[in-house]
Amino acid sequence: MSLTQHAPALPAEVPAAADQAVLIVHGKDRTGIVAAISAVLGKHDANIVSLDQHSDNPHGGAFFQRTVFSKPGLKAALPAIEEDLREQLEAGFDLEYTLRDLSVPKRVAIFASKDGHCLLDLLWRHRRGDLPINVAMVVSNHPDLADEVRSFGVPFFHVPSQGPDKSAAEAQHLRLLAGNVDFVILARYMQILSGDFIERAGVPIINIHHSFLPAFIGAGPYAKAKQRGVKLVGATAHYVTEDLDEGPIIEQDVVRVNHAHTVAELQRHGADVERAVLSRAVHWHAEDRVIRHGNHTIVFP
Amino acid sequence: MSLTQHAPALPAEVPAAADQAVLIVHGKDRTGIVAAISAVLGKHDANIVSLDQHSDNPHGGAFFQRTVFSKPGLKAALPAIEEDLREQLEAGFDLEYTLRDLSVPKRVAIFASKDGHCLLDLLWRHRRGDLPINVAMVVSNHPDLADEVRSFGVPFFHVPSQGPDKSAAEAQHLRLLAGNVDFVILARYMQILSGDFIERAGVPIINIHHSFLPAFIGAGPYAKAKQRGVKLVGATAHYVTEDLDEGPIIEQDVVRVNHAHTVAELQRHGADVERAVLSRAVHWHAEDRVIRHGNHTIVFP
Amino acid sequence: MSLTQHAPALPAEVPAAADQAVLIVHGKDRTGIVAAISAVLGKHDANIVSLDQHSDNPHGGAFFQRTVFSKPGLKAALPAIEEDLREQLEAGFDLEYTLRDLSVPKRVAIFASKDGHCLLDLLWRHRRGDLPINVAMVVSNHPDLADEVRSFGVPFFHVPSQGPDKSAAEAQHLRLLAGNVDFVILARYMQILSGDFIERAGVPIINIHHSFLPAFIGAGPYAKAKQRGVKLVGATAHYVTEDLDEGPIIEQDVVRVNHAHTVAELQRHGADVERAVLSRAVHWHAEDRVIRHGNHTIVFP
Amino acid sequence: MSLTQHAPALPAEVPAAADQAVLIVHGKDRTGIVAAISAVLGKHDANIVSLDQHSDNPHGGAFFQRTVFSKPGLKAALPAIEEDLREQLEAGFDLEYTLRDLSVPKRVAIFASKDGHCLLDLLWRHRRGDLPINVAMVVSNHPDLADEVRSFGVPFFHVPSQGPDKSAAEAQHLRLLAGNVDFVILARYMQILSGDFIERAGVPIINIHHSFLPAFIGAGPYAKAKQRGVKLVGATAHYVTEDLDEGPIIEQDVVRVNHAHTVAELQRHGADVERAVLSRAVHWHAEDRVIRHGNHTIVFP
Repeated sequence: MSLTQHAPALPAEVPAAADQAVLIVHGKDRTGIVAAISAVLGKHDANIVSLDQHSDNPHGGAFFQRTVFSKPGLKAALPAIEEDLREQLEAGFDLEYTLRDLSVPKRVAIFASKDGHCLLDLLWRHRRGDLPINVAMVVSNHPDLADEVRSFGVPFFHVPSQGPDKSAAEAQHLRLLAGNVDFVILARYMQILSGDFIERAGVPIINIHHSFLPAFIGAGPYAKAKQRGVKLVGATAHYVTEDLDEGPIIEQDVVRVNHAHTVAELQRHGADVERAVLSRAVHWHAEDRVIRHGNHTIVFP
Repeated sequence: MSLTQHAPALPAEVPAAADQAVLIVHGKDRTGIVAAISAVLGKHDANIVSLDQHSDNPHGGAFFQRTVFSKPGLKAALPAIEEDLREQLEAGFDLEYTLRDLSVPKRVAIFASKDGHCLLDLLWRHRRGDLPINVAMVVSNHPDLADEVRSFGVPFFHVPSQGPDKSAAEAQHLRLLAGNVDFVILARYMQILSGDFIERAGVPIINIHHSFLPAFIGAGPYAKAKQRGVKLVGATAHYVTEDLDEGPIIEQDVVRVNHAHTVAELQRHGADVERAVLSRAVHWHAEDRVIRHGNHTIVFP
Repeated sequence: MSLTQHAPALPAEVPAAADQAVLIVHGKDRTGIVAAISAVLGKHDANIVSLDQHSDNPHGGAFFQRTVFSKPGLKAALPAIEEDLREQLEAGFDLEYTLRDLSVPKRVAIFASKDGHCLLDLLWRHRRGDLPINVAMVVSNHPDLADEVRSFGVPFFHVPSQGPDKSAAEAQHLRLLAGNVDFVILARYMQILSGDFIERAGVPIINIHHSFLPAFIGAGPYAKAKQRGVKLVGATAHYVTEDLDEGPIIEQDVVRVNHAHTVAELQRHGADVERAVLSRAVHWHAEDRVIRHGNHTIVFP
Repeated sequence: MSLTQHAPALPAEVPAAADQAVLIVHGKDRTGIVAAISAVLGKHDANIVSLDQHSDNPHGGAFFQRTVFSKPGLKAALPAIEEDLREQLEAGFDLEYTLRDLSVPKRVAIFASKDGHCLLDLLWRHRRGDLPINVAMVVSNHPDLADEVRSFGVPFFHVPSQGPDKSAAEAQHLRLLAGNVDFVILARYMQILSGDFIERAGVPIINIHHSFLPAFIGAGPYAKAKQRGVKLVGATAHYVTEDLDEGPIIEQDVVRVNHAHTVAELQRHGADVERAVLSRAVHWHAEDRVIRHGNHTIVFP
């Protein structure tokens, strides 16, 4: 691991909506949940800015709600609001919830290898102020992208990972991540993470898979797509679980191709879809628009 | 007008969600609206099935909410629920609202001319049980589609409309519609409606325009698209207002075309987009998913 | 098999391009093929209307060319043109070719079961003059769609197919098809064809699969898509081979869905994609725009 | 104008197809053109790699053909091939043509202002080897993007342009371009070019317009789109002519938006479409896949 780095200027943070918070609630559906939540917010004079709600079965299914509310002097008021919500939601309804100040962007580590198209797209959107995240670091098993990353004022850590035993590298990863990030993005990171690492990292990990899942699981999806003669190639952003390529899907998209495209051209078109799909998934995750439920997701885009 | 008709079997109604109602609320945004609505529903033991909310500016903008709720024995309970809502919403917040039993499909008249692709697509979808509407009648200024329409068990009325004076035809239209329909669909109806007719009809009128508005307003959009060499052709479903082609847009879509397409082929591809766009707009309107606001719409699809 | 039928009026044939022929050539790529073909056409004063060419590897790969040419008095001239082409292409270059008068639409049998959305879409496009085919018959293992089909003036044959032994039904199918059709469309036909039938039918068979292949092979793709939480559902038109769902893909498309869609709604949206994809595949096949090569296709749309 | 610059390393050129040339032919359609062209190529033992042909009317319309051929030792052979083509095409058929060695990428100047998303997307794609162009220079009326551009090893020239009189700036532009570029890209360059400049530049100029033309001509298209409530926003790449926003369209695309999007969000989504559309248009122009004809284009993608 290279610990020397290029005195990075801190990236300018995206100016997030001041005095706004996001509340995610999910659990077993019951009559009165929306009323209870909005009564608490009303009691604190918080104004609901947006509210998305989903019930997968009105008769005893699962309930999901995302609420954004504004409240002048939010920071000072949050603890009291949270206390009332806890009382109502956990005690009254046995629901899980998260409450977060939207002016504090989530901190992220981006893992990449040699191919930088997804990584650079994220860094560039972040610099334009389009991605409400705080890029704490980029980690790579190759040194190739170091200069490029540091030119964005983002720390770059090279953690080589050779041979079948990844434990030393993963131990370094865990030291880098510990306490520093709220989620991890695998931006075409060409190493398989161990179940142990996923568990100990303890934060959500988003991967971009270079095919329309579940169509072309595993390596070489563009060659397989060419061979099968498919007319669309795609990409899938999903949460990482121990089952490779099987985690909950956040977003997917496709692009039309034809017989004249070589495998290299399929890759080039696919790369455009990959970065579009990944940036949407990251954007939604950063704004708590994605709720995991079993092996799928509820997305309020 | 032909009053003889083929003793139409009543079309099988789409089995709508029993014991569910939809509530639309809109007006000036203020703190506490969501809480007030959900408190009323909670008081009546009604369970919220879905809730969509939009505020175009959290600081004093306009507020829009669509709520679907279920309540065993809905029909009997609706009057009391409505009374409480009226009190809360109109008295307390000065908001407009509509409340409707979802098991009662909206009644519609479809106007068409000679070209049946949009009309037949709607009738087909309805027969398959995919469109929650009650097709009360089809009205046309040409007799060509009579047999086809009646084979679906739907009444067909031929109201000729020649010459510049449409007042006689429009008077017949108004007699047919009066009390019988909740909205009107212009499914490639090639006559311009007078402002007087639109006002006296007193129900929403949805039109399908055969281009991506506002790109090719007026007649001959496919010829214009060919001449301009556009690479996409589209269609637009909108509410009809006195300003031709200028009403609030409900839905739009496009399809890719190229230099090799003749005007006839552009029309053929465009026709596919027209029927897809119109059927989506009708579906959303039928389920109260579209709220008009000024000259645009809020759509909760 | 019901042999009685409703004295069907013959469907109005699509007026195909008079005096135009389509020539498909494929084989091993070599220098001079295009020149040889265009020299023959030039010798006969035939004018090239469109020419599409593809070589999957300029150094000794496979060569594919589709040429449409016009020639006044085509019918009388075709034999002499074909003789010259045979001499040049088979003798000179060892290429395969087909030559066909475009004014003669291909004859087709459509197989369906109970669900008519793909079948009716084809019949309706054909009646509008948008599909250059001659629908010789509809064959179904259920009687449900008989009246609907016959109202289009198309013969309907009910061939029940129960139990594991399909040989009796397939024997009837073969008698119906023999000499009468140039290709077969499976428009949501819910029976598996035996390899023996496919071989003895001796004509191309196009199937519409209700998922994005190879993602959800086999039965119940919409339920699987819901369970996996995919964000797009699709459909695939392909040529039928003995390997179920593995034949050469002609066309695919997808539509965006989300967590709120039930399996029934996924099916409804999927049905729209199915009929769009199938109609494009049929259109292209009918105009000889699709060339099979190994297990994939070259499509000149 | 800043003439000092950062000793730019030359950008690595895209390795173009060696020993391949592209031939564009257009003019009045006549029998025998394809044969004549392929006969010349056959005489020189050149192998046709791909051939696209279009006739807008087989009876005396306009004819367009793009042919890519390979020939070992192309550079040495080109003059003789060209001589034979000139004789056949100009003398025999009165056709226009261009012949170009595909291993020599076209040289381009990119004009930008302050917003770098389209510019940087082009530079990235070029650095990845995905765009077969030679970026000779970037010209801007603002200095903001200088460092970013030079980090790609590309010269950056700042040519201020204030006030209504653009003649001084345009004179500088012409001196920079003269003899150095084969085409110009306006990558969100916020200045209007004079007709005099367009004529004297003497090379094709490609602009990216931030709306679906002809829907929202002129300034502020996203605000107009928001006001009109459109459900799709788009972008259009076109050749620049003296009539602002009226030149031949090369490529267009759209993205779905909804009522919840602010003008700023429409701009963000629109920016993604802009760079995708512009990069496709540039790619196609760079490979001579676009033929201008009157006020529209023939594109062989």
